[in-house]
Amino acid sequence: MVQKRRTRQKSLPSVDGGGELALLETIRRRAAGITAFRTGTRIGLGIGDDCALLRPAPGEEIAVTTDLSIESRHFRLDWHPAESVGHRTLARGLSDLAAMGARPVAAFLSLGIPAQLATAGNDGRRWVDRFLDGLMALASEHKVPLAGGDLAESPVALADIVLMGAVPRGKAMLRSGAKPGDRIFVTGKMGGAAAELAALCADPGAFADHTSFADDAPHLYPSPRVKQGIWLRKNRIATAAMDLSDGLSTDLKHICDESQVAAEVDARKIPLGRHATLPMALHGGEDYELLFTAKASTTIPRRIAGVAVTEIGRVVPMGNDRPAVTLLTERGAEALEAKGWEHFSRKQE
Amino acid sequence: MVQKRRTRQKSLPSVDGGGELALLETIRRRAAGITAFRTGTRIGLGIGDDCALLRPAPGEEIAVTTDLSIESRHFRLDWHPAESVGHRTLARGLSDLAAMGARPVAAFLSLGIPAQLATAGNDGRRWVDRFLDGLMALASEHKVPLAGGDLAESPVALADIVLMGAVPRGKAMLRSGAKPGDRIFVTGKMGGAAAELAALCADPGAFADHTSFADDAPHLYPSPRVKQGIWLRKNRIATAAMDLSDGLSTDLKHICDESQVAAEVDARKIPLGRHATLPMALHGGEDYELLFTAKASTTIPRRIAGVAVTEIGRVVPMGNDRPAVTLLTERGAEALEAKGWEHFSRKQE
Repeated sequence: MVQKRRTRQKSLPSVDGGGELALLETIRRRAAGITAFRTGTRIGLGIGDDCALLRPAPGEEIAVTTDLSIESRHFRLDWHPAESVGHRTLARGLSDLAAMGARPVAAFLSLGIPAQLATAGNDGRRWVDRFLDGLMALASEHKVPLAGGDLAESPVALADIVLMGAVPRGKAMLRSGAKPGDRIFVTGKMGGAAAELAALCADPGAFADHTSFADDAPHLYPSPRVKQGIWLRKNRIATAAMDLSDGLSTDLKHICDESQVAAEVDARKIPLGRHATLPMALHGGEDYELLFTAKASTTIPRRIAGVAVTEIGRVVPMGNDRPAVTLLTERGAEALEAKGWEHFSRKQE
Repeated sequence: MVQKRRTRQKSLPSVDGGGELALLETIRRRAAGITAFRTGTRIGLGIGDDCALLRPAPGEEIAVTTDLSIESRHFRLDWHPAESVGHRTLARGLSDLAAMGARPVAAFLSLGIPAQLATAGNDGRRWVDRFLDGLMALASEHKVPLAGGDLAESPVALADIVLMGAVPRGKAMLRSGAKPGDRIFVTGKMGGAAAELAALCADPGAFADHTSFADDAPHLYPSPRVKQGIWLRKNRIATAAMDLSDGLSTDLKHICDESQVAAEVDARKIPLGRHATLPMALHGGEDYELLFTAKASTTIPRRIAGVAVTEIGRVVPMGNDRPAVTLLTERGAEALEAKGWEHFSRKQE
């Protein structure tokens, strides 16, 4: 990819007379198919030279985020379809861009895989091709080219995704702008990813039935809210924003910490995903929805780019005796501790 | 770092009452110490928000490269001092920027480590701190801030480094500009890294003696030729350039392929590193010197920023019967096959 080192060129076994160079060529060809989408910020010299070159448009700054996904920690090879692993790898990065309201410009993939994942399986297909199917399908949807990366043989499968986005100077949505009196909103529904995973864990054979994107599979195929983030940024709606990757209880606390405020959330207003319980919605994580605050006087649409928006609480001043986040329920007010969903891989240990 | 997910926050064991959040705070503090160097292209909001923001200077484009280093493939935990692993991780990315003549602007580190590497060892220090010592020392030397990244527990140690550099629009040195008649040059010496590694492999206990940068340790502490690359680019010396990471035989073939030319190298002119043999110089790899071509009429200094420059051959037209790279020796001319150094990790298998 960007740099092909000798050790990598030899590190994967020959596949149909190919080997790693052939695999790199496969990735390069597939990545090239998507570069027709490039607009605005220009990319030159993607996969092939020492570096990729990005030419930002005047007045724009570049948002950069990296997300590392590791076998048995973020996915399980025996459970998750390779397409889902590829999709989720890219979705995590896109969701970070969405949180800032940045337009995706380029993705860089560092992929480490055991040799057998570059060898055809029982169905005649290679894991790595199916991984790329999932990743590139989402990349096409968001018109983000795969501009480079790295490839190595590894004892465990892992993927580090770098996403670069463009945003007008000084206009990125941050976590730090929430003020007392602001209202708190979320896009979409909460806890659906955790509920889906719980159902799949109860019947692991069902994972294999989901080898392509489905709208109702928030765990296997989450939809990063890129359009919604850009809309919020363009319309200057949000005083603070972030994506819901760790769970509402944890992520809202991040906004409170960065903004030096506290928050009250009404449990009855939280929109629950399919089969989700309130604890799943509060702590489940991986919903990849957007969490944002807005001034009380700002009019918020019920839907943004086709996705529902729900008011779930309000920003209040910090106080010595007040928890960072308070949950209002029928029983009254209680401190909402930041305790994200116990990751499935930990349950196995 | 850029995005702290719940699964990561729980994934490392508590260390001195800390855990992963404390580790992230350690990295953030250490990274902050270097941001005072930031000049030109500005970086805002490094470690802490969803993305880091880069503000390129007008007329500049951004060079991006990623390099994945994996335990037992690119380094061995039982051999390489952690400081060397950190140094080499960053050096690989800096060398890619050097090859294009780009000025380093920001680094992003995705780090995956087994839990025990975040626990103090016999010497009372954690592997991860020593890794950061090595990485940050080189970062300080090149004034490149650590602007973000990711952290996860992993069954094997791995580090993916993303380097972003700035280069005036359209001025990056590429692999594709070599023309017949050009002369071929290298910085520094070849094969020294392979010779050093061979000596260390013969006496693995000696690895532990090298926990900090040394000028004469090209394997453990390579010096990426960033200044030399920038000088070459500014003075419009090179018609093509790349860094010598895979070995001269492999890398020169890349330039030939991209430039659609062939090359002749005079074996007697290749500057050998300490204890290096000619095969080490040709195929050893990991020297991280620069390989470049220049018009015959261009005057090339003997040294660039303190590093010797040596002419080793010339660019010739492609021919059907001619190999991509020909090696001239006392015995005559022979085809130089691209066969990089057999990576040490492969020898163990």
